Amino acid sequence: MTSQLFPPDVQQSIDLIGIFVFALSGGLLAVRKNMDIVGICVLAEATALGGGVMRDLLIGATPPVAFSNLGYFLTPLLAGVVVFFLHPEVERINRAVQTLDALGLGLFCVTGTVKAHDYGLGSVASVALGLLTAAGGGVIRDVLAMEPPSLLRWDREIYAVPAVVGASLVAVLIAVDHLTTLTASTAAVIAFGLRMLALRYGWRAPRAWHRNGSRTSEE
Amino acid sequence: MTSQLFPPDVQQSIDLIGIFVFALSGGLLAVRKNMDIVGICVLAEATALGGGVMRDLLIGATPPVAFSNLGYFLTPLLAGVVVFFLHPEVERINRAVQTLDALGLGLFCVTGTVKAHDYGLGSVASVALGLLTAAGGGVIRDVLAMEPPSLLRWDREIYAVPAVVGASLVAVLIAVDHLTTLTASTAAVIAFGLRMLALRYGWRAPRAWHRNGSRTSEE
Amino acid sequence: MTSQLFPPDVQQSIDLIGIFVFALSGGLLAVRKNMDIVGICVLAEATALGGGVMRDLLIGATPPVAFSNLGYFLTPLLAGVVVFFLHPEVERINRAVQTLDALGLGLFCVTGTVKAHDYGLGSVASVALGLLTAAGGGVIRDVLAMEPPSLLRWDREIYAVPAVVGASLVAVLIAVDHLTTLTASTAAVIAFGLRMLALRYGWRAPRAWHRNGSRTSEE
Repeated sequence: MTSQLFPPDVQQSIDLIGIFVFALSGGLLAVRKNMDIVGICVLAEATALGGGVMRDLLIGATPPVAFSNLGYFLTPLLAGVVVFFLHPEVERINRAVQTLDALGLGLFCVTGTVKAHDYGLGSVASVALGLLTAAGGGVIRDVLAMEPPSLLRWDREIYAVPAVVGASLVAVLIAVDHLTTLTASTAAVIAFGLRMLALRYGWRAPRAWHRNGSRTSEE
Repeated sequence: MTSQLFPPDVQQSIDLIGIFVFALSGGLLAVRKNMDIVGICVLAEATALGGGVMRDLLIGATPPVAFSNLGYFLTPLLAGVVVFFLHPEVERINRAVQTLDALGLGLFCVTGTVKAHDYGLGSVASVALGLLTAAGGGVIRDVLAMEPPSLLRWDREIYAVPAVVGASLVAVLIAVDHLTTLTASTAAVIAFGLRMLALRYGWRAPRAWHRNGSRTSEE
Repeated sequence: MTSQLFPPDVQQSIDLIGIFVFALSGGLLAVRKNMDIVGICVLAEATALGGGVMRDLLIGATPPVAFSNLGYFLTPLLAGVVVFFLHPEVERINRAVQTLDALGLGLFCVTGTVKAHDYGLGSVASVALGLLTAAGGGVIRDVLAMEPPSLLRWDREIYAVPAVVGASLVAVLIAVDHLTTLTASTAAVIAFGLRMLALRYGWRAPRAWHRNGSRTSEE
């Protein structure tokens, strides 16, 4: 049983921090899109919990943990209320939000991969669900806000790549039977660090080859 | 067992009316978006059944009732055909459609909450799934039509709030063991009435605070 | 047991060809939308596997075959890499891609209907899931790329109709207990043929009646 990597209350605390920060990003986008309090709360919930809900549906773990754990469900509402009253202040500490978001990315790509494996999925599928857990909520957020999904845009710092690296490390650790609290934390830290470096140095993923051959295809 | 609030044929009849009206709103948007008969029928189906299907997936009730009850599946197609031939007439009775839509909202927020509770979910999660049942199909409709989801827009009369009120009343009634046909109907009527009042008096949900402080952020 | 229509390796080979071609269409749209390699691979996966994944979720077959069969999951990534390096060449053989896409349409509407029936769904629901299997991935592709879903547009050659015809033939064949490898293949070929004819002769589905009565409603 690999799912109990951390003491339950430690795991829960880290989860809630990640959920809170993901929810902030959803709520802030709702404010930028001029939505009302309903939109702020719905986008906060969808961003924070959407990835984990899709993972749980795909592995057959119903109801998803987001609907059976009250803290998971209420935390995004709290973030929504914070954004509702304090959005200029939250926007101003954007760098801190991005750092915490990277922390959530690192954490969720690890726990998502572990949970998928616990439900019997293979290594590659588990990595995919690790990525889905970490990045799926953001895609739902962008679709609901009618924005091109940030995850897929060439002009944004890489987000999926750090998650895939972290998830792949976990899959390898499971395969060689070396997944412990320490090694799992290391994988999460590596994913976190890659994302922070990407933000710091503007790392982007390449677009299709030959694109630049035709000048008119540039945007 | 709280799910059998009404005699089965009464429940089924009310359900089908709600489904039909939700489907009309999907079909009409498809016509406005210049879609063909396929688009009309797909949007009718997705709007009418999408919320209930998502609820059933989340509580693990597969296949969703929309796929096991033939009447539920065929009713949106009938609505699609009506819109196809008679859309100017349906547009003209828009007020009647809005009234019936509010009736569907009241009904589905109640039945969705009850069903989620029957599948073992807690009060808060059941309320969330009541809202999803009532309003989820409309969000899918808008996403498929490339429209900003009406549910999340500040410049639309409140839709989620009446559903949350109705669903919360049901959750309280269940908690104090007083859910009967009469009390459940009352909750549905209250949600319906709130929605009608919102339409009549233009009630809207607030946007984030401080928004109006900066004039340039107005749209 | 109707699900073993073809010898397993034949079935698997045909499936993989269909998945590969669907993935090409996803990857090409990502390139046109100026997405990076992440976007290309995500759209390739979502287009190729999205319809089958939604079908499997709806019938309760978790984890979906896309996550338990490694070949199914890796094939779209291969298509993504091909598009990344060779997209101008792939665009140039667009007619061949459209032909293979029609082949995938014919195949998946048949296998989707059969699988839904194997899981106990009725005829009408099975036809709907056959259509979802064949066309659902393309809708996800378009939503992620912020394009009006091609399936619903009046100005595109019919796509859903051939799939519904093929799926309905299968449902009838099952009902009269005449589903064999030969008859199922015939249904797939008919769906394929209808789609090719639609492309050749520009067949489109009708829009709502009376539309043309009002000149200003034309676009």
